[in-house]
Amino acid sequence: MLSPGEPIGAKLYGDPSPFEAKVVRNVQAKLPQYISASSRTPLQDLDGIITPNGLFYERHHGGIPAIDSATHRLMLHGLVKMPLLFSVEELRRFPSVTKIHFLECSGNPSYKRPFGKTASDVMGLVSCAEWTGVALKTLLEEAALLPGAKWVVAEGADASGMTRSVPLDKCLDDALIVYSQNGERLRPEQGYPVRLLLPGFEGNMSVKWLRRLKVVEAPVHSREETAKYTDLLPDGTARQFTFMMEAKSIITAPSGGQRIAGPGFVEIRGFAWSGRGKVARVEVSVDGGRNWAAAALQEPVLSRALTRFTLPWQWDGKPTVIASRAVDETGYMQPGFGELLAVRGDNSFYHNNAVQPWRVAADGEVSNANA
Amino acid sequence: MLSPGEPIGAKLYGDPSPFEAKVVRNVQAKLPQYISASSRTPLQDLDGIITPNGLFYERHHGGIPAIDSATHRLMLHGLVKMPLLFSVEELRRFPSVTKIHFLECSGNPSYKRPFGKTASDVMGLVSCAEWTGVALKTLLEEAALLPGAKWVVAEGADASGMTRSVPLDKCLDDALIVYSQNGERLRPEQGYPVRLLLPGFEGNMSVKWLRRLKVVEAPVHSREETAKYTDLLPDGTARQFTFMMEAKSIITAPSGGQRIAGPGFVEIRGFAWSGRGKVARVEVSVDGGRNWAAAALQEPVLSRALTRFTLPWQWDGKPTVIASRAVDETGYMQPGFGELLAVRGDNSFYHNNAVQPWRVAADGEVSNANA
Repeated sequence: MLSPGEPIGAKLYGDPSPFEAKVVRNVQAKLPQYISASSRTPLQDLDGIITPNGLFYERHHGGIPAIDSATHRLMLHGLVKMPLLFSVEELRRFPSVTKIHFLECSGNPSYKRPFGKTASDVMGLVSCAEWTGVALKTLLEEAALLPGAKWVVAEGADASGMTRSVPLDKCLDDALIVYSQNGERLRPEQGYPVRLLLPGFEGNMSVKWLRRLKVVEAPVHSREETAKYTDLLPDGTARQFTFMMEAKSIITAPSGGQRIAGPGFVEIRGFAWSGRGKVARVEVSVDGGRNWAAAALQEPVLSRALTRFTLPWQWDGKPTVIASRAVDETGYMQPGFGELLAVRGDNSFYHNNAVQPWRVAADGEVSNANA
Repeated sequence: MLSPGEPIGAKLYGDPSPFEAKVVRNVQAKLPQYISASSRTPLQDLDGIITPNGLFYERHHGGIPAIDSATHRLMLHGLVKMPLLFSVEELRRFPSVTKIHFLECSGNPSYKRPFGKTASDVMGLVSCAEWTGVALKTLLEEAALLPGAKWVVAEGADASGMTRSVPLDKCLDDALIVYSQNGERLRPEQGYPVRLLLPGFEGNMSVKWLRRLKVVEAPVHSREETAKYTDLLPDGTARQFTFMMEAKSIITAPSGGQRIAGPGFVEIRGFAWSGRGKVARVEVSVDGGRNWAAAALQEPVLSRALTRFTLPWQWDGKPTVIASRAVDETGYMQPGFGELLAVRGDNSFYHNNAVQPWRVAADGEVSNANA
């Protein structure tokens, strides 16, 4: 450089390099409408396990409300001795809890064609952050539960009034009322100023812009747990309250839309995660699923957090199919898509956790082997 | 909300809430000039251990250069069998390493008056992120060291040509050539597209906008390791090559400029860290240093990373002084300021790791007890 660069203070809150302008959240073009919609994290552009807040995936049911933290209140009522109303500053006075957890949409990835081209298209409705808030258990103890308390109904302050019923056990376990994400206050699109976080459960239950928690005896069967977020089975019945995000993984490099520069050393990199706890191991196949090798896991391996895996690979330049499968600490292994279809049939929509295979062509082009 | 919020896709790269507009990097007003200057992280506004990239502290010696990742090259030469030139994409083909580490300016906090008012004023030249890159050891092995290799000179591509000599031992240990921070590519102010990262060492040695590594027999005694970044002692000699950032801590809540709402429960929260490894324990005093209690450490406790501590406190509403002191895994305990002065005298400028006390007044106002 022959001349001085930009001075201090030009940007008091920094932005990415203009040379990285293409690394943004991925929004499907020509959506029917943009109020109840989603944007996807560009997984193939990320390193490590932290998703920067600016790239964290979104799913809204009534757009992003503009809420002032100073006037927002959270009500806790129902089957409690002492109904309570909290300001955000009051919530911050309680003992704080910080955890790194993934958050994932139950519709990640699509169960039906067309399957996406890139890792983001396929699996971009998952992200991971460091969350800080107060344990919901602490607030429930403050309010004191009454006999009969078995569920907690969480309601958002957005235009959709997003409402879900949550089993009390989860609320007394690791549920958080979150005010910060990756060190700073929640972003508007992530529920500013407070959201529920239910680690390992499908994302829509971690109600954003949280304004009300009602302790009840039974689930309320809201729209989002009856008409939506249930799984229609081949026999015509539907699975309801399928909260848990089961073990899953995806290779992000090399992945769809990328090109391997040439034969030789390639570090295969990807993410694995499980709503049930830690990832125990990840296996990778570079020969279309005939053989599987154990990948290395990046430390720290945290419960209900994205976990990075890597595997060194000498690519011989021949066409092949690569894929990963995760095993979590319960011993559960991620299934193949055929195994999932055999149980669920083809009317299902949510909770597809099948192995994602990528095709590698002789010229190094990588594409979705499911597409 | 009676009307829908902002639709998906309005911001493909998200920003903080407008209601958090005051949470920005802290730049001293009326600096002599803004090219060689610093901005501080607003520590008192953060939760968890990850510093968001937009709030990561800065220290530049020649402004922030605008570098295109596609044309940037890193040269590795000197006492090696095979001098090498790397593009960023070539660096990304090597096995990747991801670690969470703090980075801190050696001038953090100020050794001399005026001491700052807030936690950011006092100690804001430290931040923590998840870094991804290639181990420098991997590149040195690729180039193959020749006999006599003992130091590596790192040179930046900024207008200051920032240059530091690094002992080979560190380069073969945990030194990284970093291309990503908190999941995404480095920000311009953090060295885009590649920087050196020397975990635990004073920040200026982790040369940003890295363009050259020269393997040599002896340090080059650059300006930034002779005229600057040395510690003048009472006997007129100077300590040189004082790389290590020793154990340190600060209470961020309640801290200077904040006000405790009233007597009763207060969760004391802060950061501790050590360049020598993990924080073993943090002790907190709420009575001006007469008694010290062990604080809880937030998991995971990582080597050379910011570590969160918390201590529940029942404030009786009386004036007092609160402070924290860190002990690292080597057994070293952070000293009081008097102990440091007795050894270093008052000509020193860098490497102040003394205990930071905060005064709490009867009305709950918190101020710097050193000021």
